[in-house]
Amino acid sequence: MKNTQVILARRPVGVPGPEHFDLTERAVADPADGQLLIRVSHWSVDPAMRGWANDVPNYSPPVELGTPMRAFAVGEVIASRHPGYAQGDVVEGLLGWQTYALSGGSNIGHKVTETDLPRTYALGIMGLNGTTAYFGATETLGAQAGDTVVVSTAAGAVGSAVGQISKILGCRTVGIAGGPEKTRQCLEEFGYDAAIDYKSQDVAAAVAEACPDGVNCYFDNTCGPISDAVMTRLAIGARIAICGTAAITDWDPLPVGPRVHRQLLVARARMQGLLIFDFADRLQEARDALAGWLRDGQLTVREHILDGPETAPGAIEMLYNGENTGKLIIQV
Amino acid sequence: MKNTQVILARRPVGVPGPEHFDLTERAVADPADGQLLIRVSHWSVDPAMRGWANDVPNYSPPVELGTPMRAFAVGEVIASRHPGYAQGDVVEGLLGWQTYALSGGSNIGHKVTETDLPRTYALGIMGLNGTTAYFGATETLGAQAGDTVVVSTAAGAVGSAVGQISKILGCRTVGIAGGPEKTRQCLEEFGYDAAIDYKSQDVAAAVAEACPDGVNCYFDNTCGPISDAVMTRLAIGARIAICGTAAITDWDPLPVGPRVHRQLLVARARMQGLLIFDFADRLQEARDALAGWLRDGQLTVREHILDGPETAPGAIEMLYNGENTGKLIIQV
Repeated sequence: MKNTQVILARRPVGVPGPEHFDLTERAVADPADGQLLIRVSHWSVDPAMRGWANDVPNYSPPVELGTPMRAFAVGEVIASRHPGYAQGDVVEGLLGWQTYALSGGSNIGHKVTETDLPRTYALGIMGLNGTTAYFGATETLGAQAGDTVVVSTAAGAVGSAVGQISKILGCRTVGIAGGPEKTRQCLEEFGYDAAIDYKSQDVAAAVAEACPDGVNCYFDNTCGPISDAVMTRLAIGARIAICGTAAITDWDPLPVGPRVHRQLLVARARMQGLLIFDFADRLQEARDALAGWLRDGQLTVREHILDGPETAPGAIEMLYNGENTGKLIIQV
Repeated sequence: MKNTQVILARRPVGVPGPEHFDLTERAVADPADGQLLIRVSHWSVDPAMRGWANDVPNYSPPVELGTPMRAFAVGEVIASRHPGYAQGDVVEGLLGWQTYALSGGSNIGHKVTETDLPRTYALGIMGLNGTTAYFGATETLGAQAGDTVVVSTAAGAVGSAVGQISKILGCRTVGIAGGPEKTRQCLEEFGYDAAIDYKSQDVAAAVAEACPDGVNCYFDNTCGPISDAVMTRLAIGARIAICGTAAITDWDPLPVGPRVHRQLLVARARMQGLLIFDFADRLQEARDALAGWLRDGQLTVREHILDGPETAPGAIEMLYNGENTGKLIIQV
């Protein structure tokens, strides 16, 4: 029984690629008292992994060189000497890019109890992405019926959920995505009322047209020119959630852009950073709501599943190049 | 009986000065049915007047050329055919830079009932400045006991009140002001725990030293380099109130500066515009609290009173040049 691991071997600057990872095989140890052993079946690929791999100040310490890449993953408990877990339990957590994970329990996110739903959902719509979208829409944005909600990376794993949840809440939704296929997904699969292709359209003009009464809520995963355009159309009392900054590859030194202060002041708007870990004690509330909507058919999920550990080293680049066509997951 | 008015005669670009105003005298009309006539005794000088005089998008329409400069003022009702007001009432409102104001009531802010306090307080600590500071500290910043609160324009009419209110709420307060006299006021009169002179000190280094556990709350009246420095020291969950942007004279096109998105994301911080008009239905709550603190001697107020209408045309420049030594008021 060999543990296949994808090790962060060299420190990247910016988006990590195949040159920064090595695949290794190690022996699998038996769980000690208080530990459980998990056969990991699916690895997640998330934008936050760029930050984790780089040696820059962040909300998590950088991944140590020579260790498995930090990643969310899901798998089944095959042996347990931990009182909270039994053989056969399905668990999700920061198990890393490895096929077997020994855990003391602290890196387990949750026990997957919604066994009628695909297990991979624990990494996306029922995991980091969906719960982020849920609290982003309901808390950080405070989206209310009648609001116009604009979402950047609108067809992405988080963005598509924000758009759909906002729609369920009674909002008008406008998605910004790159290229005709993604804007088609926005309109036909994720139910946006309007979609803007930032690659071929003048975003500011398109937002103005799609949001004649201004933007009440803006869920931003990009920073950069897309955000700058949306910020010119804020309605009074607008709320902006900063979830990610995909358009900016380097924050040292701080990049410059239009100052937002006057826009926030004139609109009495609120711009706020969103990190799901701040909602750690309320995740089940989000999962219950999301599972209900999934079972009702109110939430559409797209997954893009890669096959095998050898696809992992290039997967973060795929994500940043926008080459994935849904929540990016590696089946191992 | 002549009404002396300070008319906006020419449109400024930026801070209005003496060249933009004319003094005129006009006859005073008797109040019509539903009107009251006010003998105005004190005019206010406020940073917002720069925006009101300029022909740029703002939260209020620009002052029309040929009309008295829009301004807060206080005076006594000398004749009333309005059911809500009687001769002898003292009222505060957007009465304009004129010695007599005919009003239908809609531009009256409030009837001054705290007659034991100086009447000029209605323009400062009991008016726009103090109520802005009250809701800024308690709502926009949500300052809590134990928080470190940083205030720019810390010795100004709003800033000095934010600092003192935060102190009353149990916070540690750090004031940023220009020059040794204003930092002395911060420490000796307004009770700040630390004061930073942005004219002679490295603000980022001084904030780091004064706030070893980071900045929980930042009340900003400046934008520009002072804000950029404070933003590098945010604590997790920080709140930033944008009340004014005194350091930036032109917003068309948008000036550039360091992007704040990553700072907001990493700290899960909230940056929000503050405009007192959004609290219009709660002003008495603020006035009651402020009057209590004033009567207890917990709030110190500085006023700088100019004498006569002819001082008005240069007064906004004085304010922006930092030449005033307290809340700037013109006695007429």
